[in-house]
Amino acid sequence: MGIMRLGRVELRVMELEKAVDYYKNVIGLEETGRSEGRVYFKAWDEWDHHSIILKEADAPGLEHFGFKVEKLEDLAVLEKRIEQFGCTVRRVSNGTRLGEGQAVRFILPTGHTAEIYHDIDCLGKAVGTLNPHPWPDNTRGIAPHALDHVLLTGDDVETVTRFFMEALDFRQSEKIMTVDGETMVGSFLFKANKAHDLAFIKGPDNKLHHAAFHVDNWYDVLKAADILTRNDVQIEVTPTRHGITRGETIYFFDPSGNRNEAFASGYIAYPDIPTITWTEDKIGQGIFYHRRELIESFVKALT
Amino acid sequence: MGIMRLGRVELRVMELEKAVDYYKNVIGLEETGRSEGRVYFKAWDEWDHHSIILKEADAPGLEHFGFKVEKLEDLAVLEKRIEQFGCTVRRVSNGTRLGEGQAVRFILPTGHTAEIYHDIDCLGKAVGTLNPHPWPDNTRGIAPHALDHVLLTGDDVETVTRFFMEALDFRQSEKIMTVDGETMVGSFLFKANKAHDLAFIKGPDNKLHHAAFHVDNWYDVLKAADILTRNDVQIEVTPTRHGITRGETIYFFDPSGNRNEAFASGYIAYPDIPTITWTEDKIGQGIFYHRRELIESFVKALT
Amino acid sequence: MGIMRLGRVELRVMELEKAVDYYKNVIGLEETGRSEGRVYFKAWDEWDHHSIILKEADAPGLEHFGFKVEKLEDLAVLEKRIEQFGCTVRRVSNGTRLGEGQAVRFILPTGHTAEIYHDIDCLGKAVGTLNPHPWPDNTRGIAPHALDHVLLTGDDVETVTRFFMEALDFRQSEKIMTVDGETMVGSFLFKANKAHDLAFIKGPDNKLHHAAFHVDNWYDVLKAADILTRNDVQIEVTPTRHGITRGETIYFFDPSGNRNEAFASGYIAYPDIPTITWTEDKIGQGIFYHRRELIESFVKALT
Amino acid sequence: MGIMRLGRVELRVMELEKAVDYYKNVIGLEETGRSEGRVYFKAWDEWDHHSIILKEADAPGLEHFGFKVEKLEDLAVLEKRIEQFGCTVRRVSNGTRLGEGQAVRFILPTGHTAEIYHDIDCLGKAVGTLNPHPWPDNTRGIAPHALDHVLLTGDDVETVTRFFMEALDFRQSEKIMTVDGETMVGSFLFKANKAHDLAFIKGPDNKLHHAAFHVDNWYDVLKAADILTRNDVQIEVTPTRHGITRGETIYFFDPSGNRNEAFASGYIAYPDIPTITWTEDKIGQGIFYHRRELIESFVKALT
Repeated sequence: MGIMRLGRVELRVMELEKAVDYYKNVIGLEETGRSEGRVYFKAWDEWDHHSIILKEADAPGLEHFGFKVEKLEDLAVLEKRIEQFGCTVRRVSNGTRLGEGQAVRFILPTGHTAEIYHDIDCLGKAVGTLNPHPWPDNTRGIAPHALDHVLLTGDDVETVTRFFMEALDFRQSEKIMTVDGETMVGSFLFKANKAHDLAFIKGPDNKLHHAAFHVDNWYDVLKAADILTRNDVQIEVTPTRHGITRGETIYFFDPSGNRNEAFASGYIAYPDIPTITWTEDKIGQGIFYHRRELIESFVKALT
Repeated sequence: MGIMRLGRVELRVMELEKAVDYYKNVIGLEETGRSEGRVYFKAWDEWDHHSIILKEADAPGLEHFGFKVEKLEDLAVLEKRIEQFGCTVRRVSNGTRLGEGQAVRFILPTGHTAEIYHDIDCLGKAVGTLNPHPWPDNTRGIAPHALDHVLLTGDDVETVTRFFMEALDFRQSEKIMTVDGETMVGSFLFKANKAHDLAFIKGPDNKLHHAAFHVDNWYDVLKAADILTRNDVQIEVTPTRHGITRGETIYFFDPSGNRNEAFASGYIAYPDIPTITWTEDKIGQGIFYHRRELIESFVKALT
Repeated sequence: MGIMRLGRVELRVMELEKAVDYYKNVIGLEETGRSEGRVYFKAWDEWDHHSIILKEADAPGLEHFGFKVEKLEDLAVLEKRIEQFGCTVRRVSNGTRLGEGQAVRFILPTGHTAEIYHDIDCLGKAVGTLNPHPWPDNTRGIAPHALDHVLLTGDDVETVTRFFMEALDFRQSEKIMTVDGETMVGSFLFKANKAHDLAFIKGPDNKLHHAAFHVDNWYDVLKAADILTRNDVQIEVTPTRHGITRGETIYFFDPSGNRNEAFASGYIAYPDIPTITWTEDKIGQGIFYHRRELIESFVKALT
Repeated sequence: MGIMRLGRVELRVMELEKAVDYYKNVIGLEETGRSEGRVYFKAWDEWDHHSIILKEADAPGLEHFGFKVEKLEDLAVLEKRIEQFGCTVRRVSNGTRLGEGQAVRFILPTGHTAEIYHDIDCLGKAVGTLNPHPWPDNTRGIAPHALDHVLLTGDDVETVTRFFMEALDFRQSEKIMTVDGETMVGSFLFKANKAHDLAFIKGPDNKLHHAAFHVDNWYDVLKAADILTRNDVQIEVTPTRHGITRGETIYFFDPSGNRNEAFASGYIAYPDIPTITWTEDKIGQGIFYHRRELIESFVKALT
């Protein structure tokens, strides 16, 4: 299978303790470790040691994101394909970060730093694997199931799309094209059955638009929005449906200004799904199905 | 990727027109063709020519079920692996059924007839692929998104599990074991990200327990149950949650006695998901999380 | 009991057939009659002849709204109390509008024309009253259960509140006060167990802010928003929660510019509910709990 | 208005601490006091001192239930009407139970002990009445909004219905009649806008069928069922819809065997609602809309 999923996202945050409090108590992740200025978190429905890493920095943004591959051998195979595509690659050794084995690091055509990895400590879930209850007691905050996807910006959406499809076996579920049909300005990519695992929108290179968490349903989106208001967290986009992916969503910001999403539903995709095309004149409807127009901050606030 | 999904299920039904009325107006599928005693259907969120085939017969049951593979070349590769496992294989030629290309047919260790195929006519969806609305107007009945999975019975659950994992690259998300840990009596198998695409429960060989349709959420499960009552369709299991897969569910019967399920949610699985084990003394809770015991018909009514 | 409910709202609309199409096919009301330039509608879960009347006019707005009283005798009793409060009152005779008996018409302190009435033809519901199914087949559009409430503007919110409480036995569930606590700028009034049946916000006299329809739950709010987008109806406020009443909501406009709401949930009120106070600095959160600020159109667009 | 609501239910329980643990941690009520062998509870969305009282006893059952009236003067007026109907009445003095003022106690035609009262301490809600959040942090268990209704059994359903309608101004939303139309075997009564505040089913006199708590929606019914399973509480009826009231529901038992319900939705009633009639041959569908037949325990287990 090669890449299985978006396994981790390392975010730069400015006031570490404030950020920790937010990801722990408002988002409701579990802190699983601290080391060398980094704090590690997993969601309750994840089994690996972490999916979110916070790293103290002078400015917000995406330090790196990583995909977990199914087998250790996949690393070498994909490493070669990444190099052949023309990306800079280097090995990251064992234990560079907490709980992690070695990784292959590479720079995307959009300038983002990505990794693929196989080894990471397995912590399991509170509900266990023997006759488990469906969800754990004592969750806090939004309590998403898992990290879901990231959306990044870059100047050349077509090339980065080609990279993920050719080198890493992703498929494209949806794309946004200029009205003349000439330029791809949005690209939604998935590996197996999710409507997207990763997406790119035309914009400045090496920027993060948002990191999204998976919540179960439309009521959980409401609950998430309620919790954000109670905690005085700014909600940029109140509950709505996406045209693209059909998912149910809210957008909001962490204390450093990194955008988060709580995302539910979205269709089940397969490699043979006919790719959906949105024309740029309908991008408003594609992104916010009910509002039918973009909002300025959504386009401009990048980290 | 090899196998992408459970693509089609051919059901034997006794009174064809009564069955057609049910799958069309109560389930709410779209009839896409008729030929030689068979009627073909697709759900609104599917793009292939059909996922359900009804075939008139003297007794209900599963005529065959088929998996769609990603590439035409996958057929030959998997055919060889199926043969190597020791299953009888034969090619089914183009156009044996409506809209279908050639297939590889094989007999499972449990006696069921299965196929893998790549070519099938693509009809698309009513919402189209250009700036589509999230759901079509004018759906009827339960209107599930798609065929979701089948659950079959067989004497040797372990061998058929091994077959799907070794020959066809499935993984096991959950299993039910006798209390002494010696015998596998239930096995839940998936290919990519769904909690299950296929499952086996210990029982007589070559029998169908149920074919399941995917609905979006817990409210749609309620709506489905309401529609079944209005249409005087027997509901065997009223809305509840599964312990296994955590899905939300109802079970009911088509007019010939084939069991159907409307299934929502269920977790997102990955190849590295730690397999969940249910012990047989907890099978009631595993199957019906709220009732916590099996019901007699659920074990006995097979077709 | 006196007044039982907000029973009818007569709206002025500019292009009658366009408005009829909207209330019939997008809102999903049932047309129950036409006469003398008026078209009458009821929702599927209402039994009286109509709850919405459209009247062709040169400008949008509220022609009148009416409360149904429990007993015919209530009319005379309340008529006297209305007069004693100092409002102009006159009797409207039988058959002035379709299906209606006589009514008592009066002018509110805010200039709006209101009526109380008892007699109106009873059409019943499609599901009947003998072993009924919970909901009818063949609904169209949003298909709300019923007319729910109206929100009106007026200069003197305190006096109109006092009028409804003293003359008509309403209670106040919530109020919005200026920060100095001196002036009431919002007032939410109910008769029995609903969070509001009627509300006033400080603004120009004799204006309609919105007429609201009751839908069942948060998923129905989503469905309503989806249907509005499909039908190119402008959604002013996408799905959110109210702080006031805690209801789940969307706002949108009919083709003439009258604002509609689809409203779900909201708490169960009782006469002894401690009145909730919102201070004007928190009005954003009170109205739109997630956005936490008003939007300009919401304050300015009145008919 | 006279009676406003079912304000309190006093239940006999056998092992007090076990019962307290259940109502506090599984149901999720707040303990508000203890005195003389009684423990008092309120739900988070109630403002009065208590709605549930547990009293240690040798057998489970309903010690009394009480209705709160709007005004102190209502007590004397209703007392007279109760006496005129022929029921035994006596005054219960101030402070007989914690937080309560005086009450009027009377014995129903079905033998149950009921009270009407006005004075009870007001504790308010955790969210307060100034710019409140919609729900409090830190709820436990099912966390229903409030006590909703009780269903009692009695031999003469017609007379007790007449009592509530004539003496206490209740209305009947639905009734169950024998097929010959001669005998009323079920009666659903409401005071203002709820589908029922109280109901009677033909059976032994002076027995409790269940006490119901109000939860917000169908997802909360699922959450309640999940919580009951996690806490090993027997669920008698898993999530389903009622035909009668259309509510969404589960039934389960407290540790002493008193039946509880978590009830959501149900229509908005008004005094002029056309009474719905269920014939006894359809009682299965009326009670459990999806199962369409009664279950034995539901008829037999009374306390």
